[in-house]
Amino acid sequence: MTAARGRGRPRDPQTDTAILRAALELFIERGVEGASIEQIAKRAGVGKLTVYRRWSGKEELIAQAVEQTIPRDLVPSPEDVEAMAPQEIIERMLPAAAETVASPEFRALTARMMGSAVSHPALMAAYWKHHILPRRELAAAMLRHAQKDGAVSADADPDVLIDMMVGAVTWRVLQPDPPDAAEMLRYIKAVYQQIGLYRPSPES
Amino acid sequence: MTAARGRGRPRDPQTDTAILRAALELFIERGVEGASIEQIAKRAGVGKLTVYRRWSGKEELIAQAVEQTIPRDLVPSPEDVEAMAPQEIIERMLPAAAETVASPEFRALTARMMGSAVSHPALMAAYWKHHILPRRELAAAMLRHAQKDGAVSADADPDVLIDMMVGAVTWRVLQPDPPDAAEMLRYIKAVYQQIGLYRPSPES
Repeated sequence: MTAARGRGRPRDPQTDTAILRAALELFIERGVEGASIEQIAKRAGVGKLTVYRRWSGKEELIAQAVEQTIPRDLVPSPEDVEAMAPQEIIERMLPAAAETVASPEFRALTARMMGSAVSHPALMAAYWKHHILPRRELAAAMLRHAQKDGAVSADADPDVLIDMMVGAVTWRVLQPDPPDAAEMLRYIKAVYQQIGLYRPSPES
Repeated sequence: MTAARGRGRPRDPQTDTAILRAALELFIERGVEGASIEQIAKRAGVGKLTVYRRWSGKEELIAQAVEQTIPRDLVPSPEDVEAMAPQEIIERMLPAAAETVASPEFRALTARMMGSAVSHPALMAAYWKHHILPRRELAAAMLRHAQKDGAVSADADPDVLIDMMVGAVTWRVLQPDPPDAAEMLRYIKAVYQQIGLYRPSPES
């Protein structure tokens, strides 16, 4: 058993899926404080050691479980960011993005992730490094693009602009009376327009 | 005992203070899920009925405890908003505001409040109604002021702009490597400048 730990044994993708699903469910239901490796293993129908062989701790495991839940179509590819105008990228992605962020699952995950940021900084750190930072780099590239075109003010700090966009949307979905997908679409357009990344088309 | 419930008995302000402090501490330490009326009463050194006579539930109690923690100097008076230019109000309030939002206590409270928004909506609803909504109305008045002056774009939705400002700051303090008060001051200025509420003075 000790010898197999961390190497040698082939990984069963179905086991990984069951563990990640159990981690996500328990995180949404109880938060990081209420989800232990033991409970995650039990719900996934595996032994504790099976989980420990794959992840160094529950924060790493939960961060990966959350990452895999956010659809990939929310983020443009690096090639798109290079080749397309920000307005074009945004128009293509907006409807799916609005639907995702207005969903009950996204709201619940956002609340739990924000909620654990101070009490369990290792979870936010893992999520930040693997999930958020690569996406922020793409968003910063889009903003530099738009700054060169003059649509976004040249002296603005891209990190601040990204926080204003992400922060507005995440704060909005945690407020009482959260928006449906149609209202979220209008809302995100208003946010992007204020930054300078989006202009309403004449017919809309 | 039953006859005294909810009326008649004069309230002791020291008891109120002890209960509010215990509620705040337990909320920060354990979140709303880990703080019960029973535990709050025990930590405050009073009986459960003493708490129930004063608050209808733990969400109302925690919301009031959090409200009393946020310093009043973070918010301009309605008279100031009427009489002063937004730039002037912001310049006067910014240093104290930056210090407050960069404090560990504000970070912890923000995380817990956001974290409970979906699992315990009654807490966010109480906090929203008593604390956030009156402040949003003042901020909206400042924004309308600035829209009339032409500093903020006339077609922008004040609710979206408020979310962008509040959302950026709350998201920033939950990120890994949170800012100190000096960095927070620079950051809030950048946020306000992007909205159009603030112009750096020539010497700064």
